[in-house]
Amino acid sequence: MTLLFELINDNPSVVLQKIGLITYENRPVPIINNPNDVKIAITNTGLCGSDVHYYEHGSCGSFKVEKPMVLGHESSGIIVEIGSKVKTLKVGDRVACEPGVPSRLSYEYKSGNYNLCPHMAFAATPPYDGTLCRYYILPEDFCVKLPDHVSLEEGSLVEPLSVGVHANRLIDVKFGDSMIIFGAGPIGLLCAGVSKAFGCDKILIVDLVDEKLNFALDQNLVTNIFNSKGKTFDDLYKYIKTIWTGDDLPTCGIDATGNKFCTNMCIRSLAKKGRFVQVGMGGDNLDMFPMSAVQEKEITVKGSFRYSVDDYKYAVKLLDGKKINVKPLITHKFTFEQAVEAYEFSKKGKSIKIMIEGPKMGKNI
Amino acid sequence: MTLLFELINDNPSVVLQKIGLITYENRPVPIINNPNDVKIAITNTGLCGSDVHYYEHGSCGSFKVEKPMVLGHESSGIIVEIGSKVKTLKVGDRVACEPGVPSRLSYEYKSGNYNLCPHMAFAATPPYDGTLCRYYILPEDFCVKLPDHVSLEEGSLVEPLSVGVHANRLIDVKFGDSMIIFGAGPIGLLCAGVSKAFGCDKILIVDLVDEKLNFALDQNLVTNIFNSKGKTFDDLYKYIKTIWTGDDLPTCGIDATGNKFCTNMCIRSLAKKGRFVQVGMGGDNLDMFPMSAVQEKEITVKGSFRYSVDDYKYAVKLLDGKKINVKPLITHKFTFEQAVEAYEFSKKGKSIKIMIEGPKMGKNI
Amino acid sequence: MTLLFELINDNPSVVLQKIGLITYENRPVPIINNPNDVKIAITNTGLCGSDVHYYEHGSCGSFKVEKPMVLGHESSGIIVEIGSKVKTLKVGDRVACEPGVPSRLSYEYKSGNYNLCPHMAFAATPPYDGTLCRYYILPEDFCVKLPDHVSLEEGSLVEPLSVGVHANRLIDVKFGDSMIIFGAGPIGLLCAGVSKAFGCDKILIVDLVDEKLNFALDQNLVTNIFNSKGKTFDDLYKYIKTIWTGDDLPTCGIDATGNKFCTNMCIRSLAKKGRFVQVGMGGDNLDMFPMSAVQEKEITVKGSFRYSVDDYKYAVKLLDGKKINVKPLITHKFTFEQAVEAYEFSKKGKSIKIMIEGPKMGKNI
Amino acid sequence: MTLLFELINDNPSVVLQKIGLITYENRPVPIINNPNDVKIAITNTGLCGSDVHYYEHGSCGSFKVEKPMVLGHESSGIIVEIGSKVKTLKVGDRVACEPGVPSRLSYEYKSGNYNLCPHMAFAATPPYDGTLCRYYILPEDFCVKLPDHVSLEEGSLVEPLSVGVHANRLIDVKFGDSMIIFGAGPIGLLCAGVSKAFGCDKILIVDLVDEKLNFALDQNLVTNIFNSKGKTFDDLYKYIKTIWTGDDLPTCGIDATGNKFCTNMCIRSLAKKGRFVQVGMGGDNLDMFPMSAVQEKEITVKGSFRYSVDDYKYAVKLLDGKKINVKPLITHKFTFEQAVEAYEFSKKGKSIKIMIEGPKMGKNI
Repeated sequence: MTLLFELINDNPSVVLQKIGLITYENRPVPIINNPNDVKIAITNTGLCGSDVHYYEHGSCGSFKVEKPMVLGHESSGIIVEIGSKVKTLKVGDRVACEPGVPSRLSYEYKSGNYNLCPHMAFAATPPYDGTLCRYYILPEDFCVKLPDHVSLEEGSLVEPLSVGVHANRLIDVKFGDSMIIFGAGPIGLLCAGVSKAFGCDKILIVDLVDEKLNFALDQNLVTNIFNSKGKTFDDLYKYIKTIWTGDDLPTCGIDATGNKFCTNMCIRSLAKKGRFVQVGMGGDNLDMFPMSAVQEKEITVKGSFRYSVDDYKYAVKLLDGKKINVKPLITHKFTFEQAVEAYEFSKKGKSIKIMIEGPKMGKNI
Repeated sequence: MTLLFELINDNPSVVLQKIGLITYENRPVPIINNPNDVKIAITNTGLCGSDVHYYEHGSCGSFKVEKPMVLGHESSGIIVEIGSKVKTLKVGDRVACEPGVPSRLSYEYKSGNYNLCPHMAFAATPPYDGTLCRYYILPEDFCVKLPDHVSLEEGSLVEPLSVGVHANRLIDVKFGDSMIIFGAGPIGLLCAGVSKAFGCDKILIVDLVDEKLNFALDQNLVTNIFNSKGKTFDDLYKYIKTIWTGDDLPTCGIDATGNKFCTNMCIRSLAKKGRFVQVGMGGDNLDMFPMSAVQEKEITVKGSFRYSVDDYKYAVKLLDGKKINVKPLITHKFTFEQAVEAYEFSKKGKSIKIMIEGPKMGKNI
Repeated sequence: MTLLFELINDNPSVVLQKIGLITYENRPVPIINNPNDVKIAITNTGLCGSDVHYYEHGSCGSFKVEKPMVLGHESSGIIVEIGSKVKTLKVGDRVACEPGVPSRLSYEYKSGNYNLCPHMAFAATPPYDGTLCRYYILPEDFCVKLPDHVSLEEGSLVEPLSVGVHANRLIDVKFGDSMIIFGAGPIGLLCAGVSKAFGCDKILIVDLVDEKLNFALDQNLVTNIFNSKGKTFDDLYKYIKTIWTGDDLPTCGIDATGNKFCTNMCIRSLAKKGRFVQVGMGGDNLDMFPMSAVQEKEITVKGSFRYSVDDYKYAVKLLDGKKINVKPLITHKFTFEQAVEAYEFSKKGKSIKIMIEGPKMGKNI
Repeated sequence: MTLLFELINDNPSVVLQKIGLITYENRPVPIINNPNDVKIAITNTGLCGSDVHYYEHGSCGSFKVEKPMVLGHESSGIIVEIGSKVKTLKVGDRVACEPGVPSRLSYEYKSGNYNLCPHMAFAATPPYDGTLCRYYILPEDFCVKLPDHVSLEEGSLVEPLSVGVHANRLIDVKFGDSMIIFGAGPIGLLCAGVSKAFGCDKILIVDLVDEKLNFALDQNLVTNIFNSKGKTFDDLYKYIKTIWTGDDLPTCGIDATGNKFCTNMCIRSLAKKGRFVQVGMGGDNLDMFPMSAVQEKEITVKGSFRYSVDDYKYAVKLLDGKKINVKPLITHKFTFEQAVEAYEFSKKGKSIKIMIEGPKMGKNI
């Protein structure tokens, strides 16, 4: 599927001016300087918790917004121009956009861990502008072409899906494994869906909100749910033992909350030699880390940071093979002009994933 | 080197009767029931912190002494009898004794992780009697023959040395790596020595006591020392950056203290993609776990539990190849008859490793 | 599903007396000597190429039949008696039987590679009798209970399926990988099905016989087929490039033929850093091994031998989760009394998998 | 150690004009175009078999010399100019030069395997000019600074040493392993030295020439030698069993010859689960590949190609830590003006490593 459009010579952008203030600006249309770059007309941008955090607090983790910044980093779009050396993409191609571009010269990039590159330029992470605009420039290898049957809307969810892919790959989830996940927000749900696609036969998700748990089950992202509200670890363990029989316990665990109780319970639920990965961000330090369980069961604990080599490609492969259906996660849609409303709405916590359309495209040619 | 002795028909044993009370008992001479077992005349037993803990508190971790128990588990000795199917050992062989025998039928044993076997019978871990006695029975494959030039005294240190081997192997320490270790007690020192033998070019050990640090340096177990008394993480980091230059930081870390500040600082000191292993036992939960560092650097955290396949063999190989000199760690020696004094003395904390000889052997034949 | 039967006090067995001569013998009913053993009434036995090889040639590889031997090793059955310490199985359970029992004392067993144990007692591998009889004894952990919805017929295919599981696990086939397999016999087909279940999105199988290739495709075990009759490597490569686009090539390869041309072409088809595993047995040495391709692409080549820890369990899990449908592979069925006919028929090469029923069971109680 | 020299405005180069004809040319002094590049005054170049092969045959493997080409790729030198963004090196630094520069945009580079990059520009591999000249340009991260106590002569041997590092790392050689190597030429010797530094306690090298074997032993690069002239595999095996006792056999093997008999015997010598890596280049296909041994012992076979991330750094670390002494390998030295003589001499096969000095440097300033 190749889509050709007339170019429009402006670049309307959704800019966070300061805490609580988002306005539209017409930013300069970006120009391809590097022969391996492509220019993308952004068609869809998912709204992520970090965007909202910048909106509400002006910062996220150690990153502070110190000058106006275009928001957005979960995007898809259509190629409208390509650099002179681009070989794998052409004008009209529909792509998922990887929003962080590392230095090609860094040791981290060279050694296969570009997500850890200290010179990473990441969309909507200060001081770098995001993707909620008309045109965005990326190197060709940071765009992954969407199969014909995958929509651009789904394509914008490749970003959070890649977070789940990366986390699952870090602890090498595969056939024969089983999974317990804490947190049924978008990241927890996508992690669960990836675990299933990677071969887990049992996926138990734990949350405090029945609606989220039921959604996970209804969408076939998990095999079991547990509402931990007011429950102890023993309660959880008893439930686990109704699913995992004999000496079995989950071989893998993911925390997608950042909450110390969740990390504690998740790790303690695991089988000997189990593998756990922390995806949810909490504070610098976490109390109640169950170190004796980690020792006595020789559990491996890892931390996951964004995504790296092949994660985007694998995420698109998941969509291509219909291994996961991300469409139901998109519970609300807004036009580009409604972006501020989208941010306001997101604060209510009633949505799973909010989608903002890109600016209206030029005429189809 | 083969040593033959007259057998003596008694089995004097050092028995912990209850908290604070150790007495001698003449236990029955054990009999070989299994054709793959050997009988060992114990010649040397190192005193371990856990033994002392049972002596002072009647428990260690979740293990409680509920009936009189023979103490000791860091032992070496001489084979005095072999079962009918024993092939790899003969009477007179000098061996290091692996004190924990798992179930051959357990899944953990079958899958190469026998240290995690739930049916482990471990010397001087209730309800199993220890090795501070004249004769002890083990399967042949839980005895490792000592090379001629390795003394039985050194042989009894194979047990704690194997703890260091296991920990270093868990995080795959090898040439190209560098190490930071917290805690310069016997386990920390042995971990350091193993790290060096495994190829680390830089090994920094951190402790609060200058004597221990200087010992580590003098014995060539480490390349650098840091006394963290009254020091902040920034102080430590500054020192680290005088040793690790450019973008380098330690690739590996071991905590041999069980203290939350140590684990915290050790993990935060590591390079991206660093590997950390917790060896020191603390409480069930550990506060101040630096999860954001684990995530942002994608650090791997593991817990180490005793030792497993090949660890004893590798420890003896280290001694055989003179890759580590454990002799200087033996700071004090006691006869079998002085065992109670040895336990009393150990409480003073003035020793590194206390060695208790076995009961006097029979006549050499 | 628990099935209880009256015991019958005989043990009719299908015995290879010498090359070309199979007769029935009433062997002694085996007795449980080990408290962890179970007695199984064999209900189904698949016919394997090695059985036929013994029948026709009196040997297979380095194994020679030197005295009469009961045939059969791909079996399932119903537990009719359990040893005093058996905990995981009960009388009436339906199980898949793992036909090779290693020494619990061997280093290979201890280190997680029991398939390589030199003391392996493997059914129908001289001098050990096979499973084509009424009653067979196994340790409980070498029987895997079948889920209710998995038939005993399917259960007998767990053995060859485990060969595929082991081979795929050896080269760590997982989501993101793609596969090329040579040989569409039972093992090649089952390897392919496992590759699919493990996450391969593209599985190309190569054979000389259209019927086999079409069967593979019809049964959804593969995504693509190639008949290599009279074709060159370049022909194959051209076809591959119609499926794997851009710089992609199969990341994994399996040879299930033992033929040098197949191994050669399979390895040369692989992507850089590809992984190949040899499953098919050929002679001692293989000519035309494409070493320069192995070097220039840094390909990993492994050899697979039977199955080991968890492989049987995973194979049953595949059936449990309906990740593979093995039923269509059973193209012909024979009663126990027709066993000789079954062997005769198999020589014609018109079957995929021939199934021989066990002796008629006792009355249901 | 920082060395400053007057620049000289010419670039004398040793150029292979065609088969058998090497002349001197004054090539243009190269200019730094990339801000991350450095200009190096070449001081030392080791002579490699591939250079000689081009000289004698005009080709090496699939590479053909189609236009005059500067020879040489095992070089060290002194930085004489740095690009505007260079941070890790300064003028006067002594460096080992990594001769192959991959594309920063290739998938292979991104995924940590830049040695496999299809766009590699490798010195003295057609059509790229080599390092036998006065000035050579490299990106800063393809130069590794030499410690003060490591000479520039040794620095030029970092190239072949990295081949050994890469091969040993590919099969994860570490403490606990033991090694058998075929071929006692420079690469075999360096592989052996790396194996020793990586922790092998036994290293047996096999060759046909006593002088080479004795050199290996005298230089402490190996622990054992075997002259295979006129010997069978059984002879070799018998010798191995005098060194590896009990059930032990070498866990790792390297072939540094490219000869089919060597690969065959090396693989067959290995322990179960052994790892083998092919370093020596032979023809496209290799006959007599011992596939049944690979299967029955589940051996891993890899091919090694040049070197990649960290290999150069590790090689310099080996020299820095005096883990290997490469100086004795330099058996003959020639001035830059004697380069043709050096090539002629090398054909006699009487040298291990021939060293050619760079052109005379400018005045020290």
